Amino acid sequence: MPKQPVIPKQPPSFADIEAAQERIRPYIHRTPVMSCAYLDKLTGASLFFKCENLQRIGAFKLRGALNTILQIPTETAPRGVVAHSSGNHAQAVAKAAQLRGIPAWIVMPDDSAIVKINAVRELGAEIRFCTPVIEDRQRVVNEIIAEHNPTVVHPFDDPRIIAGQGTAAIELIEDAVPLDHIITPVGGGGLMSGTLIATAALSPSTVVIGSEPQITDDAWRSLKLGSPQVNEHTDTVCDGLKAWISELTFNIMREHNLHIERVSDAETVAAMRLYWERTKMIIEASSATALAALLSGRFDIAGRRIGVILTGGNVDLDRLPWQ
Amino acid sequence: MPKQPVIPKQPPSFADIEAAQERIRPYIHRTPVMSCAYLDKLTGASLFFKCENLQRIGAFKLRGALNTILQIPTETAPRGVVAHSSGNHAQAVAKAAQLRGIPAWIVMPDDSAIVKINAVRELGAEIRFCTPVIEDRQRVVNEIIAEHNPTVVHPFDDPRIIAGQGTAAIELIEDAVPLDHIITPVGGGGLMSGTLIATAALSPSTVVIGSEPQITDDAWRSLKLGSPQVNEHTDTVCDGLKAWISELTFNIMREHNLHIERVSDAETVAAMRLYWERTKMIIEASSATALAALLSGRFDIAGRRIGVILTGGNVDLDRLPWQ
Repeated sequence: MPKQPVIPKQPPSFADIEAAQERIRPYIHRTPVMSCAYLDKLTGASLFFKCENLQRIGAFKLRGALNTILQIPTETAPRGVVAHSSGNHAQAVAKAAQLRGIPAWIVMPDDSAIVKINAVRELGAEIRFCTPVIEDRQRVVNEIIAEHNPTVVHPFDDPRIIAGQGTAAIELIEDAVPLDHIITPVGGGGLMSGTLIATAALSPSTVVIGSEPQITDDAWRSLKLGSPQVNEHTDTVCDGLKAWISELTFNIMREHNLHIERVSDAETVAAMRLYWERTKMIIEASSATALAALLSGRFDIAGRRIGVILTGGNVDLDRLPWQ
Repeated sequence: MPKQPVIPKQPPSFADIEAAQERIRPYIHRTPVMSCAYLDKLTGASLFFKCENLQRIGAFKLRGALNTILQIPTETAPRGVVAHSSGNHAQAVAKAAQLRGIPAWIVMPDDSAIVKINAVRELGAEIRFCTPVIEDRQRVVNEIIAEHNPTVVHPFDDPRIIAGQGTAAIELIEDAVPLDHIITPVGGGGLMSGTLIATAALSPSTVVIGSEPQITDDAWRSLKLGSPQVNEHTDTVCDGLKAWISELTFNIMREHNLHIERVSDAETVAAMRLYWERTKMIIEASSATALAALLSGRFDIAGRRIGVILTGGNVDLDRLPWQ
């Protein structure tokens, strides 16, 4: 089987994030930062929502995928890219490959929602199905590598991905400075890692906080126990937060002494619904964990200025979690 | 019973709309004008969505209610205001009265959704219930007039209301000029009347179009037959478009030679869902009639620049019309 290029597993620098911002700028939306008088009154804080649900493909994931795919060398780029995902990373890789004009193969579980399959197809990617177990997923990825030798694009365990995701925090800080806190959900930790690095450089007095579902609290446990942990159960409503963190993202979170607030799915669903009702904006459950943490009353936010990264808005409108 | 002040049933002038804009400016949001690359591609047009779903109280109705309530003379204002509505006008009157610091009585049918009742209560208004028939509604309004003699605020049959609603078109034209068309739903015709007057003054080459549910197509029939018609049936998903037009709004629409496009509820629901999915923004069914008309293929919009007034985003999230 052909060999993949080895990407050093080092954290990106802030300069890498700035370079990512220049690189991806022509292809992404500068999403708005919005506020909601009702939620400010309810929390006693000033909340600044970075609306990555309004990003192209409906999620921040395009940032990292683009930053990675635009850096694939000219010689290997025509062989395309491959990724496995049933979620926002699938659409992000498909869209980024389309923008670069190279082929994309996406490996998706054969029980994926039709709406997600169609969204990836619409972006011109070729879908290969696997059964919904990790071993089979890797088998299908390996088949594609053997056939076409495309570049594998990992959803978070790559400094180029992390640098791309960190660009959202730069924009948020520019638009809402000064901020006492930035809060963002933790799945695999790519967005969180980029946010930590960007915030430490641009606004060192801002304390970053993570939000995580109680059911998939691998990051919280990892930081507590001092080594990367996995999730035994993944039956959370937060589709986007089922992955577990990598050595790379763990090290970045530990180095920055990250505090994570865990929330129940019930808290997440209530926060999601409240946000829809009050702002008329659709956010997915994963995004709502951050608002749920702020509404939980478990830490003091009165009088603070808080940036909230709303990670995405891709929701199955036939199956809303409060119904 | 005390007498109500008589408001002349003349169309407002463009100067009245400009005065309304100055009057209400401190209290309303200047809502954004947004676009969606996917919908532009789908229609072949350039669509500019005026997002009144992001207005305070979640609908444009606050503009007219404020413009009216802020003009009540100082002597009579302390007696408050009364309105009957189970929809956005109820919240608009309650909010405008709260902003002016005067009492509001809202007459609502006793089968109104709890979420709507709570929204009005939260704004400090007193609710009086009636049975859901027109005669009983008027009986309860009369009771309140006999008790407190507040000013009646009609949802559309008043030049001050029409002038207030017309301010949305001014902002849309400012932000998206030049426009070939502006399209907006027609219920009682207040928003449409204000839009016609503002557009004729500011951008006379822009042709305004109306959208209306087939089930409650009183405006379409009125224009066709040359006199105001009523709706025999009101079982449309478009809560906000069940009212029928008045002599005043009819005359304005006829004078401007308005074209109305009728859409089925199925077209409206499909357009509503598509808008949610693609833009991550919540719009109510009434708003979606305008997009449905554009998607219908029944008139030629290719290459045109079209402003679309999204009238509101107040939706019962437990009962989505596609479920």
